[in-house]
Amino acid sequence: MASSFKQEAHQLLVIPGPIEVADDVLYANAHPSMSHMSPMFAGVFQDCLTKMKQVLYTEVGQPFLVAGSGTLGWDMAAANLVEPGENVLVLNTGYFGDSFAECLQVYGAKVDQLGAPVGDKPTVQQIEEALQKKKYKMLTFTHVDTSTGVLSDAKEICAAVKRVSPDTLTALDGVCSVGSEEIRMDDWGVDIVIGASQKGLGVPPGLCVVCASPKAITAFKNRKAAPTSYFASWNKWLPVMEAYGKGAAAYFATPPVQLIYALQASLATMTTKSPSLEERFALHRESSRKIKDTIQSWGLSLVTLNSDAAANGMTAVYTPEGLQPSAIVPRMLKRGVVVAAGLHSEIKTRYFRIGHMGLTAVDKSRGDVDTILKALKESLEEAGYKCKA
Amino acid sequence: MASSFKQEAHQLLVIPGPIEVADDVLYANAHPSMSHMSPMFAGVFQDCLTKMKQVLYTEVGQPFLVAGSGTLGWDMAAANLVEPGENVLVLNTGYFGDSFAECLQVYGAKVDQLGAPVGDKPTVQQIEEALQKKKYKMLTFTHVDTSTGVLSDAKEICAAVKRVSPDTLTALDGVCSVGSEEIRMDDWGVDIVIGASQKGLGVPPGLCVVCASPKAITAFKNRKAAPTSYFASWNKWLPVMEAYGKGAAAYFATPPVQLIYALQASLATMTTKSPSLEERFALHRESSRKIKDTIQSWGLSLVTLNSDAAANGMTAVYTPEGLQPSAIVPRMLKRGVVVAAGLHSEIKTRYFRIGHMGLTAVDKSRGDVDTILKALKESLEEAGYKCKA
Repeated sequence: MASSFKQEAHQLLVIPGPIEVADDVLYANAHPSMSHMSPMFAGVFQDCLTKMKQVLYTEVGQPFLVAGSGTLGWDMAAANLVEPGENVLVLNTGYFGDSFAECLQVYGAKVDQLGAPVGDKPTVQQIEEALQKKKYKMLTFTHVDTSTGVLSDAKEICAAVKRVSPDTLTALDGVCSVGSEEIRMDDWGVDIVIGASQKGLGVPPGLCVVCASPKAITAFKNRKAAPTSYFASWNKWLPVMEAYGKGAAAYFATPPVQLIYALQASLATMTTKSPSLEERFALHRESSRKIKDTIQSWGLSLVTLNSDAAANGMTAVYTPEGLQPSAIVPRMLKRGVVVAAGLHSEIKTRYFRIGHMGLTAVDKSRGDVDTILKALKESLEEAGYKCKA
Repeated sequence: MASSFKQEAHQLLVIPGPIEVADDVLYANAHPSMSHMSPMFAGVFQDCLTKMKQVLYTEVGQPFLVAGSGTLGWDMAAANLVEPGENVLVLNTGYFGDSFAECLQVYGAKVDQLGAPVGDKPTVQQIEEALQKKKYKMLTFTHVDTSTGVLSDAKEICAAVKRVSPDTLTALDGVCSVGSEEIRMDDWGVDIVIGASQKGLGVPPGLCVVCASPKAITAFKNRKAAPTSYFASWNKWLPVMEAYGKGAAAYFATPPVQLIYALQASLATMTTKSPSLEERFALHRESSRKIKDTIQSWGLSLVTLNSDAAANGMTAVYTPEGLQPSAIVPRMLKRGVVVAAGLHSEIKTRYFRIGHMGLTAVDKSRGDVDTILKALKESLEEAGYKCKA
């Protein structure tokens, strides 16, 4: 039915976000205008808040849904949870670690970064040592760094914080993991999850999705200095989200009404229909395994150095020796498959990225995984590379 | 055709934003997923930037289109154009003056407010006197204050600034005026226009629309201190907008792709089809005149005290003596017409607000103005008020 929207042939969008969006979600995004203050819309917003908690396995978390992008979630964490001069430890697994660190510094945080070679991640031992050396208000990590495809072990990191520095807040940048990777906020002790609508949640971009633990909310309420942002201030948003959480409308700035309807449609699929949430995560792992195994069997290398630290919703692949991404990406496009060029400055001319979140990973009847692999193999061979196996 | 989206009867949305959205714009908002980095999308973005300049009558302005709401535009003005400790003069014509002032203070501005009784606005003489007394980095005014329906005279204000304090930047909060009121940025000397998608632009909410003059961009570039926001920083957004302006994609944070398509659809109607932009503004004035004259002929009073200072896209109306807004608004709703309760704290229990922007004002074949007036008359009479005339 979505064909009526297409003015040209639709190309399969398999970058690490935005991702393919289901027809019912696109329809919801075309919902006729509704007042953001109407009881009907308040019920929809409430439903989204409730279901976001389900997706993040939290009973006690406080979700925030605000017009913006995932980046705005960094501002929220930086402006509301850290006071100027406080220390923050940033675990860096790629481009987005650098950027989050920069954002924190804009708000006055003193940032130490704990990095790793491209494709790798800091070890638990390194994290524990860093936490022992200095008192940190917050530790941040990129759950999936979209520039490298490295998956951080959220459970392990939060456990290390709990052991060594239990007062430290844990911030999970889940922009490229919410909906595609398991995140158990309450069990693991994640204090803030930062996400966006256009990745694993399967919704068009334009919505910043954040969830804060009671510990994070308490830290916010105990601030000495007022937050140094207006649009990102929880002083403004917390009462609004609390009201919508009870099914009542409240106003600070106009919410992106249609995107909230779209999120509701996608969350309904994610939380109530078969496959279950757990099965969805398993399907992401399965699709990822198939893509990574196949590509490696052809003789190509992944950017992620350890298979247990590889994202399940995307794959970063080195091009074969002598081929630039510009030899592959346009050839994929010619075959109707949109993949992404590199983003990490150190290796930018040597790799490309494939997204496989949401529909592409979960709905096998679409055959997206096979479409991607077929187009990639043809593109590689057309570019002169002979695939092994 | 939009009927396929309706799960329940659609109620006419005539609050002061969000407004009714045309079917082709809703369809565009359901556009299948596209890469924000694709040349095809970059062309759409470029088209939006070009047409936004047409709507604001500027050749030299630099538009910014960012996921967010109008409120984010305040953060942009405050974080990029004012340095901590600098003076800002806020002309206050209602709720949104207070809020903009608060936002400016969050970013360290020293704010003086020049107010007026509810429903009125500061005089040119008062503005000139204030500008003579102190050196201001920026003067801000709410073009249409949605809480009172007061229309500021943008041309007159900018002329006063030019006469008395030509270095002072002029900031026009056009959230409730862009698209429904004439704004001639270049001719009048407006340095920053702050708008949003869901009002006169006739697009769903979720897009912050800003346009800056060369003088504003120069003031930004000459800052001594870095902007104290990350998500709202023009250091990040200016190169992105400059790239899209040339038809090339660039990345800081993911744009709300579908909303950009929706904006393109609405701007195409606003700038290229009949009625022309000038005729659209005239139709807004005409619809407004009809609504205001009719309501006053029934014996009701408007919140705006002077007819030449009344918005053309909305009307704020005092309820008849003895009737609360709660006697009117639900009765309108029962008749399928959604109007808004009051917002200004001083008069909140004594008035309500009607929006008449975009389709409702321009497309006479819809009959929205008559629908509003009929429902209002019936509601008033049902509540026991006898309409005069």
